[in-house]
Amino acid sequence: MKKIQHLDHVLVSGGTHGNEYTGAFLARHWLQNPEFLRRASFKTIPLLANQRAFSICRRYVERDLNRSFHPSGEIANPEAFELSRARDIELELRKNCAGGLPSVIFDLHSTTAQMGLSLVLTNREPFNILLYAYLRSKFPSVNAYLWQEPKSQPGFLNSLSKFGFAIEIGAVANGVLNAEWVFKTADLVSACLDFVEFWNCGELPALPPSVPLYSFLNHVDYPRGDDGLPTAMIHPLLQGRDFQPLKDGDPIFIDFKGREILWNSGTAWAVFINEAAYYEKGIAFTVTEKIEVNTVDLLIN
Amino acid sequence: MKKIQHLDHVLVSGGTHGNEYTGAFLARHWLQNPEFLRRASFKTIPLLANQRAFSICRRYVERDLNRSFHPSGEIANPEAFELSRARDIELELRKNCAGGLPSVIFDLHSTTAQMGLSLVLTNREPFNILLYAYLRSKFPSVNAYLWQEPKSQPGFLNSLSKFGFAIEIGAVANGVLNAEWVFKTADLVSACLDFVEFWNCGELPALPPSVPLYSFLNHVDYPRGDDGLPTAMIHPLLQGRDFQPLKDGDPIFIDFKGREILWNSGTAWAVFINEAAYYEKGIAFTVTEKIEVNTVDLLIN
Repeated sequence: MKKIQHLDHVLVSGGTHGNEYTGAFLARHWLQNPEFLRRASFKTIPLLANQRAFSICRRYVERDLNRSFHPSGEIANPEAFELSRARDIELELRKNCAGGLPSVIFDLHSTTAQMGLSLVLTNREPFNILLYAYLRSKFPSVNAYLWQEPKSQPGFLNSLSKFGFAIEIGAVANGVLNAEWVFKTADLVSACLDFVEFWNCGELPALPPSVPLYSFLNHVDYPRGDDGLPTAMIHPLLQGRDFQPLKDGDPIFIDFKGREILWNSGTAWAVFINEAAYYEKGIAFTVTEKIEVNTVDLLIN
Repeated sequence: MKKIQHLDHVLVSGGTHGNEYTGAFLARHWLQNPEFLRRASFKTIPLLANQRAFSICRRYVERDLNRSFHPSGEIANPEAFELSRARDIELELRKNCAGGLPSVIFDLHSTTAQMGLSLVLTNREPFNILLYAYLRSKFPSVNAYLWQEPKSQPGFLNSLSKFGFAIEIGAVANGVLNAEWVFKTADLVSACLDFVEFWNCGELPALPPSVPLYSFLNHVDYPRGDDGLPTAMIHPLLQGRDFQPLKDGDPIFIDFKGREILWNSGTAWAVFINEAAYYEKGIAFTVTEKIEVNTVDLLIN
């Protein structure tokens, strides 16, 4: 393997959404017990990103913190709490990372969709793909969704670094600690940190030759009434089928009288099916295309 | 069967907690489509109880509406929104029920606990026990939890009537429509209304000779740290075991380091295990005793 960039600082954040207890409570635990995150070749920084939203068990106080990061710093006078909090997090991180930003960011989330153990990538950096392949070698059910952040809007906490991703686990209800998911998430984070350690030492373990990537195509909203509220629900035959193929003729919605709406836009793979926080964002589910990504080329180049 | 009281007005309410979408959306649907609730011998009144909390997808605006009803009207100047809303609901109902209160109230809730299809009774009125028995004859998985409301505090919406109960279904995340649970809840409500019709006609169908009642013993809180937050979670072996026996030596909590806490208070039956809204109420789960209630005596007396 060619000489690679040494990664000095790794951020592990949770509670970016205050009602996603899995990450928030793990961040709180790791702030008090940092030894779990310690590795020899880099410094790990735990962060409970939105303490104020966490303390009132809400996703956010004024606006979504995970759509509030402007790494280039365009916002001079942020008005909403989360825009100001995003700026403060960036400043804190620069203090902790010798003036720069973290080399890698793992931001912990949970979802009411049945996403299992999943990653939300915002790019196809070889580091991220290889890390994903490593995670799949240890936890075969891990999947990755590739999302393209709009450049015109403030973005994810993990957009502060090109390495790393959001970790999405579920289905878990908001405001609830599910011990199994908490321990699974901690195991996944531990494996992520192990991989950074391998990377820094220049010796990666054997990896699967390819991994599936579910790449964003478009969002699908609920049918809505004049009052803006959904008039139909995710169909029971779609519920829980994240990362599974959706084919023409499959039912996607059902209204309160039992009338069905069928899919008719060609084979695709749905993700974030019935995520609570996306009702207000106009997303019932997101469709993706499945791409098989070769990891061998990434190791050689 | 002896001559029974004719029941004139039945309230079917949802959205008493604004983020419990199952009942809120069903109430909204039935306000627009009341024919589903129509029966020959009585008038059914659909109600979306806390529209304001529903519109912001929160349990309540200022305080729990379902702990805000004072049927005797002690609160002259309610300060919190929900105390005033409770008063308004009572006044509206009196207008709709010929000056009185509804004869029967079914109040729809959902929970993040795995309560299945369950009823929360606040008394052992023969009507309620017989209705429960009827529901079990149609839906064998239905269970009933008997809760004694503290007389010193404002209470449940359904405390406005001695007939009826809260319907609790789950596990469902807050702020989410799960179509299967929505249709199951509608089926349960329909069966409840059918029973009122049988009652009014003085002819009940054949009922199971006895039904199990899970009667409140006490609440169990999470272990908590100095900041008041839980330091341990519901143990995976307790999670989802609502209405099942809990025995000495069974693990109930697990902390973030994997250390377990075991049950040592004798055999009991746990309900509302890991309900999101009860973290702030200091309830990790509630223990009950299981009582077998004879329905034959109720039919004869």
